[in-house]
Order: sequence, then structure tokens, then C-alpha cells
Amino acid sequence: MSVLDGKTVAEKIQVELGTEIEKLKGEGGIVPGLTVIMAGDDPASRAYVNSKSKLAEKMGIRSKLVKLPETTTAEEVIQTVEAANSDPLVHAILVQMPLPRHIDHWKILDRILPEKDVDCFHPTNQGLILQNRSRIFPCTPCGVMKILDHYGLDPAGLNAVVAGRSFLVGKPMAAMLSNRNATVTLCHSRTVNLEGILREADLIVAAVGKPAFITAEMVKPGAILIDVGINRIDKEEDFANFCPPSRYEVFKKKGYLLIGDIHFQAFAKAGHYTPVPGGVGPLTVTMLMSNTVELCKRSISVTRDA
Amino acid sequence: MSVLDGKTVAEKIQVELGTEIEKLKGEGGIVPGLTVIMAGDDPASRAYVNSKSKLAEKMGIRSKLVKLPETTTAEEVIQTVEAANSDPLVHAILVQMPLPRHIDHWKILDRILPEKDVDCFHPTNQGLILQNRSRIFPCTPCGVMKILDHYGLDPAGLNAVVAGRSFLVGKPMAAMLSNRNATVTLCHSRTVNLEGILREADLIVAAVGKPAFITAEMVKPGAILIDVGINRIDKEEDFANFCPPSRYEVFKKKGYLLIGDIHFQAFAKAGHYTPVPGGVGPLTVTMLMSNTVELCKRSISVTRDA
Repeated sequence: MSVLDGKTVAEKIQVELGTEIEKLKGEGGIVPGLTVIMAGDDPASRAYVNSKSKLAEKMGIRSKLVKLPETTTAEEVIQTVEAANSDPLVHAILVQMPLPRHIDHWKILDRILPEKDVDCFHPTNQGLILQNRSRIFPCTPCGVMKILDHYGLDPAGLNAVVAGRSFLVGKPMAAMLSNRNATVTLCHSRTVNLEGILREADLIVAAVGKPAFITAEMVKPGAILIDVGINRIDKEEDFANFCPPSRYEVFKKKGYLLIGDIHFQAFAKAGHYTPVPGGVGPLTVTMLMSNTVELCKRSISVTRDA
Repeated sequence: MSVLDGKTVAEKIQVELGTEIEKLKGEGGIVPGLTVIMAGDDPASRAYVNSKSKLAEKMGIRSKLVKLPETTTAEEVIQTVEAANSDPLVHAILVQMPLPRHIDHWKILDRILPEKDVDCFHPTNQGLILQNRSRIFPCTPCGVMKILDHYGLDPAGLNAVVAGRSFLVGKPMAAMLSNRNATVTLCHSRTVNLEGILREADLIVAAVGKPAFITAEMVKPGAILIDVGINRIDKEEDFANFCPPSRYEVFKKKGYLLIGDIHFQAFAKAGHYTPVPGGVGPLTVTMLMSNTVELCKRSISVTRDA
């Protein structure tokens, strides 16, 4: 079994992106602009948003964070989106999920201009993925494809199982793998005999959100395991059940560990696997930068064509 | 094994639709309007278009057929689409596929207003299906769901295999079955071990376009078989391979037979199956009428809300 090292892939992409960003600046002083809108103060969201802002700064992308209180209204969030829509210096808009419970997220996401929709959650953009004619993709499934491509793991002809059917990861992932000629089975909470289905899979993408949910018994020897889950373990009992003893010191020191949806014991059976952390995670935030640059480049070519 | 009789289901839906259409006329003299645009003179397309026009007339839907020559340009087709887009008496627009080879179908389909897109092929509408928040669906997969619902066959928890990944049938079908809690595997020409995958399926939707492609050996006893294929058999040899001897007289008399993608010998093993003709076909054209009425009703409520 070999580790699919997301950090290495992410760094390689960041170097390439850096060159593109330099070129944009050299050409006409163009700086890709990303606006992140965050409502409320969910600690996990805050951590994600910070890592996005930090990478944007490092890459030379102009990023702006708009923070709204937990008590904000849908109308206020929409106004913020509209302001970014009409700002020519903003090429990419991200609304951090989850939004406060009283706000219907579609009401917000549908208002982002498709051509500034860096997360690729607008129905038009997701439809284009289904129809196999999109060139941008939601960051997480896009990152998964980059890892597979980097390691020369061609999904064509593989039996792929995607566990989890969110529009953020599972559904676009399934469409993207199908477009790349995998035979894709999309599983979810109502799936009967998930174990049997997983055991037939050449490639598993786990996006379930349950720590160590997919165990060694569910995995075919030699399978490719891609773990999208990020789960926080802070109880001794969970550590004992889900984590390798070798990480106990770190667990005690930090008070918690982040683990994925796939149990570490499954790695020994796998042909290839992504660790958590250091697998898909670094790609997700890198693809956000990559999508920002792509949308920026498109906006220029649209302006030139006009 | 029991037959899923599409004609009966279609007639039932047509009766319900008739009542709705009467109500629209009674309310304010509103007549649902459908424009069908056909370029070229493909004989199969002509037959489909005729059956659509005939049913529209029977149902009291105002339908208009715009015929363009095989040599028409994309620009001419777009102009026809735009005229229908801006005509307030037209609630639904259908561009008959396939278009002449020199025309990129997306160039045309993307120009139909999403709110008049009766086939549900616009990326925005397909994205809404992926996101499980659409209320209209492409006619064929929608007809499949109506048959399942009519016969009380709930897809939830079933292992469903959709064979064929077109944006017309296979891909939206897969999304719709997943939204109804089936575990869906989407197969295609590059699928390895299709037989083994089909043999595990509780529900098969065949949309391959190859006569009698799915044979009895590939089917699990008791499975639900839904056949979307319509293939023309006009050679004696193909008749002998693909058709039941009992239909030989009809074959000789007509000179051809229409059969599906599932071999007739598989029916004996099935729990339920749709025949060809008389299965999904009658539903497809009925759902076109149903979508036309739905789009008409929506346009009224939009006008009222404005």
C-alpha cells in the first residue's frame, strides 16, 4: 500500500499557479480577487476560512473576508453577495457553509453569478458537470481528481463507490468519475448492504462525515481509498476505537485528533490511500485558489471578446 | 413476472391532465402552448414529432411545429428558439434531437429559456435535478418514475443499475433514482463486468440503444426491468436472434419490429418489466404534455406574483 500524499500534489499545483498569477500581474496588473462571506462564528468554519485567507495571501491572490453576525438575515447576505457580484475586482465568491440555520442556503448560493461561483455550487455549474462540459469543479472532488491524476491512477473502467450524496462532494464526484469512464455507484444513508457494495469497489471515495466509518473488512485488497472526511476525535474512548496507538501522544498533547471516514486499519489492505490530515484537505484549499485564477482568466477573455 | 403497462399509466395521467387543462381554460382562457422545432427530416424524428403533435391536439394543448431544412444554420435555429422564448403564448419549447450534424446541439439547447425548457436539458434545470430540488424532469426518466409510482414500486433501498449515461436519459435518471433513495450504479460503454453488475441489480433501467442487449443471464430473478430502448429490427437474422417467434407474423406484415434493449427471454425471470412497445414510450410523450402544462401553470403564477 502506498500513501497518496496530498501535500506534495498541492504544493506542485501551487507552484504552477504561482507562475500563472505572476503572468496575470505582468500582463496588465491583474490580481485575482476572491471574496469569502462568512455568517456566524462556527469554529470549524473559522479555521477553514483562515486557512483559505492565508493561502490566498501567500499566493498573491487578493482575498477579502466579509464577516456577518450569526443573527444576520438572508437579505443582508444576499446584499453582500450582490456587492461582490458587481465588483469588477472580485472574480470569485465563496459563501462559507454552513450558514446560520434560519437561512435557506439555496436562497444565497443561487444569487452568486455562475461566472463568479468559485465553489461550483450554482445549479447551472452543477448541470454543466453532469453534462460533462464544465472546466471548473467543486474544490473537494476536483482535488480528488488531481490526486488520482498526479499518481497516474486512471479511473476509467474502475468500479468506483462514492459514499455520501451531498451536492458539495458526493454528487459532483460521482458525475466527474463517470465522465472519466469509471462505473460509479453512489451510496448514502439509505443504502442497503453498503459493506457488500464497498467490498466490490476498486476505488472508494468516502464523504460520509462519520469517523472511521469504513473499516478494513469493507475494503477489497488493493483498492484505492480516498478519504474526504474530517472528523474531530476528542474522547479517549473514540481514540481507542478509531485511532492508531502511535498517535496517542499527539492526541494527549493537542486534546484532539482529526481523522477521516476510513478506519486506519483499512490502509494496510489498500493499494493506495489518502491520509487524514495530509490527503484531500490540502488539495481542497488549493483548488479554491486554482478556481479563483481560472475564473479571473475567464473574466479577462470575456472582456477581450466583448 | 408482471407487465408494467405504460399505456394504462399514460392514459390515467392524460385524464388528470385533461382536467387541469380544462381548468386553465375555464380560469382565464389560458391554453398551454408548445413549440416543437425540428431541423432536417430524420424519419424517426418525424414519427416522434407527429405523435407529439397528435397527442397535444387531442389534449387541447396549442402546439406549433417549426420545420427547418437539413441545411439550416445554427443561427437560424437560434432565431427560431428566440422567437419562441419571447412569445407569451408559448410556455414550452422542444428542439427535436438529433440536430443536423453540423450544428452543436448545446449552442441551441442553452438558448432555450430555462422556464420554457420542456425537455429539461438546460444545464440549470439538470443541476436542479442533481441537487434534488427540481419539480420538472426530462420526459423519459420522468415517465419511468411515473410507472414505478403507479405500480407501487418504491426505489428506496433498491440496488438500481442505469445502463447508459446520456444527459437525455441515463444521467438524470441516475440522479432521480438516487434522490428517491435508491443506490444507483451508472454503467456505460466503458464499464468492466457489466454482466456481474447487472446480476446484482434489483432494478435495471436500460437506455443503451442496442437491441436485446441485456439478456436473461444478466438479470437477477425477480428484478424490475425498465426498458427505455427503441430499436428497429428489419432483418430476418436479427428477428431470429432478438424477437419472440410469436411476433413473426407482425414482423412479416410490417416489414419491421420495434424492440427494446432487453431481450424478451429476460422477462420470464423478472419480477416486473416494461414491454416495448407499450412500456416507457407512451409515458415519454405524455410527460411532454405534463411538463408543458406545468410550465404554463408556473408562468401564470410568476405573472400573478409580479
